Amino acid sequence: MTDPSPASLADIRALVAGLPGPDPAAAAAAAAREPQLTKPPGSLGRLEELSAWLAAWQGRHPPRLEAPAALVFAGNHGVTARGVSAYPAEVTAQMVANFEAGGAAVNQLCQAFNASLAVTALDLDRPTRDFCDGPAMDEDDFVAAFNAGLGQVHGDMDVVCLGEMGIGNTTAAAALCHGLYGGDPADWTGPGTGVAGPQLVSKAGVVGNAVAGHRDHLDDGLEVLRRLGGRELAAIAGAIVGARARRVPVLLDGYVCCAAAAALAKGAPGLLDHCQVGHVSAEPGHARLLERLGKAPLLNLGMRLGEASGAVLALGILRGAVHCHAGMATFAEAGVTDKG
Amino acid sequence: MTDPSPASLADIRALVAGLPGPDPAAAAAAAAREPQLTKPPGSLGRLEELSAWLAAWQGRHPPRLEAPAALVFAGNHGVTARGVSAYPAEVTAQMVANFEAGGAAVNQLCQAFNASLAVTALDLDRPTRDFCDGPAMDEDDFVAAFNAGLGQVHGDMDVVCLGEMGIGNTTAAAALCHGLYGGDPADWTGPGTGVAGPQLVSKAGVVGNAVAGHRDHLDDGLEVLRRLGGRELAAIAGAIVGARARRVPVLLDGYVCCAAAAALAKGAPGLLDHCQVGHVSAEPGHARLLERLGKAPLLNLGMRLGEASGAVLALGILRGAVHCHAGMATFAEAGVTDKG
Repeated sequence: MTDPSPASLADIRALVAGLPGPDPAAAAAAAAREPQLTKPPGSLGRLEELSAWLAAWQGRHPPRLEAPAALVFAGNHGVTARGVSAYPAEVTAQMVANFEAGGAAVNQLCQAFNASLAVTALDLDRPTRDFCDGPAMDEDDFVAAFNAGLGQVHGDMDVVCLGEMGIGNTTAAAALCHGLYGGDPADWTGPGTGVAGPQLVSKAGVVGNAVAGHRDHLDDGLEVLRRLGGRELAAIAGAIVGARARRVPVLLDGYVCCAAAAALAKGAPGLLDHCQVGHVSAEPGHARLLERLGKAPLLNLGMRLGEASGAVLALGILRGAVHCHAGMATFAEAGVTDKG
Repeated sequence: MTDPSPASLADIRALVAGLPGPDPAAAAAAAAREPQLTKPPGSLGRLEELSAWLAAWQGRHPPRLEAPAALVFAGNHGVTARGVSAYPAEVTAQMVANFEAGGAAVNQLCQAFNASLAVTALDLDRPTRDFCDGPAMDEDDFVAAFNAGLGQVHGDMDVVCLGEMGIGNTTAAAALCHGLYGGDPADWTGPGTGVAGPQLVSKAGVVGNAVAGHRDHLDDGLEVLRRLGGRELAAIAGAIVGARARRVPVLLDGYVCCAAAAALAKGAPGLLDHCQVGHVSAEPGHARLLERLGKAPLLNLGMRLGEASGAVLALGILRGAVHCHAGMATFAEAGVTDKG
């Protein structure tokens, strides 16, 4: 495909409307091979589903997992001025430097799973507007961030793990979810990096006030993302679209990443069919969000770090699935008696 | 340590009573390092617990995961004559040949996670006695199988994944659990390789009758294992003991593997403190058993294959934990501002 580069929300909508579906030939080949493998039918559980899913969305059988990639997007948020985080906003840039130096958790996880890592810092010296005062981004700013994500996905990636870093962005995620699904703001607001007690109550209040200020503009997912998201969330939405366009299956990470995905897919849940969710985080809104999205996470280990850590860790499961599907002997090859 | 080789149930009891605990120095070193790493405290969830657990039970800080090993034990069961499995008993030997040829799921998973694999076939041409008619094994037979497992664990293994293959052995696992914990036999009896309907009802009946026949001998865990287990289950118990003696942490696999562990640890649950459970299987008794054991599984992917597959797959999580703990930068090294 030619490189898409939407210049407006309308362009993004047109791009999304033209995205491809799964590849029927690869899906059929996976479905034909699986029951021949030397194991009781279904006994590999979700591994069987995952190898079929990878084949269908890569458009390739057997599916391949030699070149997994992690993409981390970083942004700063005007709403941090309201004291919603346990860490100061300068930590976003410090952590980007830590990613670049190889010292963060995601660096170690990428090393453990032979994944490449690209970190994209999005105008960190220019935080998005405090969304309690108006839209976080104007349309140009939003589209630029969306394109930054879209442009990071390349067709030679076998799967892409998406993640983020941004002090204040669990507040953005909570505002997105409250804006998309309603309910009580406290249901969507969690400790993030570690706020508790009165600060957590205040964070929920900020979320409620922010969404109330945008209440007449909550019907369209991209518009919700522009108003209540942040640049790293817009970039994640762009990367999800770019991955679909280039036949790269996606592993989503935690609450912030999935909130961006939810906004993108509002009203069109099939738009996330090429995405699996790497893990459910300890951030309480995440499990609630995954229920809304109808997505079962691959891992549940009480992680709540972001930076794609849960998605990269889930690469191990995909690797196991691909090895089994591609490498196991068939009943005929092994001379094993099939089910009587 | 000198190589232990118990010659009787009494010898096994004495060996078990003298097993070492966790290493306090390695545990303290892990606990001191973790809060210095560049992430909010606790944000890696169970990965933090796992690196500390590995350090304490390896007696080494940082913990190491360069040489993981999988041990699969295979046995045949007289109870298969009662039609408890969807596959004929000769499949046990066929699958052992498949393991040796590299065609099974566990071969592929070991390749995916750089684990060694050793398969031990235990007198497959001499099935254990049908435990509906009497003890599955006499004491010598049981001790020999226990020692076969014990002898497979070596001190240069960084972690050992334990698994089994044996047509009919989910019936043995159900009998063990019903014998150890009581309740309704149907609560402990599941489809195994795929029995359903009347055959599943009949399988539960076999389990109930078998346990009733041994009802006066259910107080001692090893005795329960000798009467209602099988050689591969005895070998797993032996490997758990051998691993503890040689400071090798253990990943347990599914229902059969954990039932053997439960019998070994009856009345002394701390005996499994050096073990984590790799996954909870789709076999319904497994989740119930893990609740009794107080063990939270690392994965929940609907797998039900055995042959150590869930334990080996969980190696990816341990690998992520070790990489993060050993390789991440500290706040001081990275110049990142710690929590305000």
